[in-house]
Amino acid sequence: MTDLSCPAVVTYAGGLTLSRIVAGMWRMNEWHLTPPQRLDWIEQALAMGVTSFDHADIYGGYGVEASFGEALALQPSLRDQMQIVSKCGIKLVSAARPAHTIQHYDTSASHIIASAEHSLRQLRTDHLDLLLIHRPDPLMHFDDIAGAFERLRQDGKVRHFGVSNFSRHQFESLNRRIALATNQVECSPLHVAPIFDETFDGLQDLGVAPMIWSPLAGGRLFNGDDAAGARVRAAIQQVADELQRPFGSVVFAWIMQLPSRPLPLTGSGRIEAVREAVAATQFSLSRSQWFEILRAARGHEVA
Amino acid sequence: MTDLSCPAVVTYAGGLTLSRIVAGMWRMNEWHLTPPQRLDWIEQALAMGVTSFDHADIYGGYGVEASFGEALALQPSLRDQMQIVSKCGIKLVSAARPAHTIQHYDTSASHIIASAEHSLRQLRTDHLDLLLIHRPDPLMHFDDIAGAFERLRQDGKVRHFGVSNFSRHQFESLNRRIALATNQVECSPLHVAPIFDETFDGLQDLGVAPMIWSPLAGGRLFNGDDAAGARVRAAIQQVADELQRPFGSVVFAWIMQLPSRPLPLTGSGRIEAVREAVAATQFSLSRSQWFEILRAARGHEVA
Amino acid sequence: MTDLSCPAVVTYAGGLTLSRIVAGMWRMNEWHLTPPQRLDWIEQALAMGVTSFDHADIYGGYGVEASFGEALALQPSLRDQMQIVSKCGIKLVSAARPAHTIQHYDTSASHIIASAEHSLRQLRTDHLDLLLIHRPDPLMHFDDIAGAFERLRQDGKVRHFGVSNFSRHQFESLNRRIALATNQVECSPLHVAPIFDETFDGLQDLGVAPMIWSPLAGGRLFNGDDAAGARVRAAIQQVADELQRPFGSVVFAWIMQLPSRPLPLTGSGRIEAVREAVAATQFSLSRSQWFEILRAARGHEVA
Repeated sequence: MTDLSCPAVVTYAGGLTLSRIVAGMWRMNEWHLTPPQRLDWIEQALAMGVTSFDHADIYGGYGVEASFGEALALQPSLRDQMQIVSKCGIKLVSAARPAHTIQHYDTSASHIIASAEHSLRQLRTDHLDLLLIHRPDPLMHFDDIAGAFERLRQDGKVRHFGVSNFSRHQFESLNRRIALATNQVECSPLHVAPIFDETFDGLQDLGVAPMIWSPLAGGRLFNGDDAAGARVRAAIQQVADELQRPFGSVVFAWIMQLPSRPLPLTGSGRIEAVREAVAATQFSLSRSQWFEILRAARGHEVA
Repeated sequence: MTDLSCPAVVTYAGGLTLSRIVAGMWRMNEWHLTPPQRLDWIEQALAMGVTSFDHADIYGGYGVEASFGEALALQPSLRDQMQIVSKCGIKLVSAARPAHTIQHYDTSASHIIASAEHSLRQLRTDHLDLLLIHRPDPLMHFDDIAGAFERLRQDGKVRHFGVSNFSRHQFESLNRRIALATNQVECSPLHVAPIFDETFDGLQDLGVAPMIWSPLAGGRLFNGDDAAGARVRAAIQQVADELQRPFGSVVFAWIMQLPSRPLPLTGSGRIEAVREAVAATQFSLSRSQWFEILRAARGHEVA
Repeated sequence: MTDLSCPAVVTYAGGLTLSRIVAGMWRMNEWHLTPPQRLDWIEQALAMGVTSFDHADIYGGYGVEASFGEALALQPSLRDQMQIVSKCGIKLVSAARPAHTIQHYDTSASHIIASAEHSLRQLRTDHLDLLLIHRPDPLMHFDDIAGAFERLRQDGKVRHFGVSNFSRHQFESLNRRIALATNQVECSPLHVAPIFDETFDGLQDLGVAPMIWSPLAGGRLFNGDDAAGARVRAAIQQVADELQRPFGSVVFAWIMQLPSRPLPLTGSGRIEAVREAVAATQFSLSRSQWFEILRAARGHEVA
C-alpha cells in the first residue's frame, strides 16, 4: 500500500490542478491533534499524492484555518507541494463572530475580499489556489462577485475561483462573467440528486469537474439504520466482496466513475480512510455493479 | 412626505423606463370612483413619481382599461407623463365576451394584434409603452408572437414587449427572437418561488428587471391567520419597528433589495398605500434583517 | 377513406424526413402475424403514407427487428420507400442476453456501434435512417456518444441521430456536439408533463420536432377507470362528437396541434388504428376544444 499515488486532475480549461482525492479539513479541530501531529497528518496525505486541502472560513467555528496554518508554519516549504482551497459567503452565529445575530449569507465584494484576506492570515500563506462562494445567496450580484474575484486574482491573493452548492443555472450565470474552476456539491449513494438534476450534466457539458462533499453520506453509509441505508450498504458490500476492495473504496470509485470527473473529499482524520479513497483511483466497477448500487440507492431499477 | 419622489428604472438594454413602483390598475373598478376622482388618483400618483400604470385587457371583466381611458380623456396631456402597460393572451368567460365557453389562452398573432388595438381604443391612447403576454400558452409559437410584436412596433402601436408568469426558459426562448423588456411575476414574502427557481437568476443574468405582482400577497401579509402568515407578519413588524418604517414599506423594500431590480406593483386604491410603496425606495434593510424575513417566510434558516 | 395520405415532416435542419404518423413496432411480435402478413401490414401502412417505422434493439425481447427484417426480405424494394428508426443503450435482462444480470444502460461508443450494426443485420438493411439513445444514462459521456454517431455516419450505417426520454438540458448538451434530429418522449392527455416542463419549449426553440410514444396512454384513454381517465375520456368524446371524428383521431390531432410539431407513434396492430391516426392530420380542434381536453387532463382550468 505504500506505493499508492493519487493522480491529479485539471478541473477546467483555466488550468487548476488538484489531486483527484481532496483532503477535507472540515472537522480537523475535532481530531484533537497537536500542531506537530497535524503536520504529520498533512505530510502523510502529501506522501500519497493527496495534495489538495479543502477549507472554509467557517469550519470549526471559524477555527480550522488557523489550526492548519499553525501546522504549516512548522514546515513552510510544504506550501509549494499543496493546493489550498477555501470558501466564503456564510456568516455563522458563533462566539467568534458576536456581531452575527442570524445565520445568513454575504456575497458582497467587500465581504468576499475581506474574508479571503482573513483566510490568508489564518492559513499563514500568501495565496489561495481556489476560493469558492459557499452557498448561492438570494442577494448575490453576479457582476459584483466576478469583480471581487478579478481583484483578488490581480492582487495575487487567489489563483482560481469557483462555487459550492450552486444549481446549474447559477453556476452558468457566474461562469459567463468569470471562468469557474469547480462547483463543490453533495453526492453519495444516499444523495444522488446531482446525477439526475442538471448539475453534473451541466458541468460535463462545460468540461468543469465538480468537487464532492459527503461522499460517504456523513457516515450513514456505514451505520444508517433506515431501509435505504441498509439496502445501499448491502449492495456496496456485495460489490466490495466481488472486487476484493474495501467498502469505502467502492463508494469513492462509484462516484469517480461519473462522467463529469468528480473529485471527492475525505472527511475523516484517520489516514487509513484517506488511503481507501486514494485506492479507489486504481480500479473501476463494471457497469452492472455500478447500476446495482444505483438501484439500491433509488429503490427501483432504471426504466 | 410631500417631497416623496419615486425613482425610475431602465428595465432592459432596449431602453424602456418605468417608475420603480408601478401603479396596478387590476382592481380600479372596485374602487368605485367617478371619472374626475380617477383622474385625481392618477394625478396624485404622478406627483409622487409613480408614472407607470399596469393594465390588462381582462382586468375588471374587460372593463378597467375603459375606466382609465375615460379619466385620461379628461386631461389628455397627462399621457406624455406616464407609461401605460397592458397584457393580452387570456380569454375569460365573461358577460363581455359571450363567445368564450371556457377560460383559455390565445397567443396567435391575430389575437395579439386585435387585443392590443382594442386596448388602445379602451385606453384612449395611440400607443402602449409595454405589452405583455399574460400567461405562457401551451400552444404558443415563439416565432408568431415575435412576429406580432414586430408588427405592432412597426405600426407605432406598442413600443416595448414582455411577458408575464413565464419560466426562465420560456422567457429566453422568446427573448432570442425579440428583446423583452420584463417578465411580470408573483413574488412576496409568502411566495418566494422566483427567488429560488431560475426566474430571478435568469433575469439578472440578462440584465432584465422583473415586475412583481401581489408583493403584499393579496393582503394575506396583513391578515392571513395561518402559521406562515403569522410568523412572517411578526418578522416584518419587528424590522418595521427597528427601522421606524411602515409595515408595507418594509415589504416593498425587502423585494426591491433583490439583485434583479424588481419593480413591484401596488394594488390598492388608497393613495397612502402607494405612498408607502414609494417610501420603500428610500431605505434598505440590513442583510440580517433581510434574512430574518426570509427565515420566517421559509420556516427554516439558510443552510 | 382510401385516399388518406399522411403528410411528411422534416424534423430538423439536418434534413431528416419522416411521416407525420410513425408506425411503432414495439409490440409487433404480439400481433402473431406470419411473415407475409407482416409484409401486408407494412404495405398497407406505406399505402397511407405512413413511411416511418419505429424500432429498438430491445423490442419484443430483442426480437422485433428480426421479425420486421424477415418481412422486408420478402420484398426488399420496399426499403427505399420507408424510413427505419431504431434505438440502443438499454441492456435488458432477457433470455436472449444471458450475460445481463441487471437492467442497465450502456452508452459507450463500442456498445452504440455494436448495437447499431446488430440492428442492421436483424432488419436486413444496410442503413438506419435514424438511431436514438433510448434513455439518458447517468454514465453517458456526451463526447463519446457524439463520436460514435459520427463514425456510424461516416461508415454509411446511420444517416441521422437523436435521443429518447432526454430532458431539455441533456438534449442540448448532446446537440451542441452533434445535431440531433429528434427527442422521442411520452406524451398524451394522461401524460402532459413535456408540455409544461421544458421539453417541448426547448425543441420548438431549436426547430426540432419530437416523436411521441404512448399518445393513447397505452390504451388507458379508452378504458382507464380512475377519475382522471374517466374525465379525460368524456372530454375527448365530446370533442369527437362535435367534430364527427373518431375518438382516437381526436387524441392524435390534440397532440399534433402542439407548436413543436410532434410526430406521434401508433402502437396497435390494427391497421384501422393507424388509419385513425392518419385521419388526424386532416383536421384540427378549436382552441376552446383543445383547452377543454387540457382542463380534463389537469383537473383544473388554466390560470
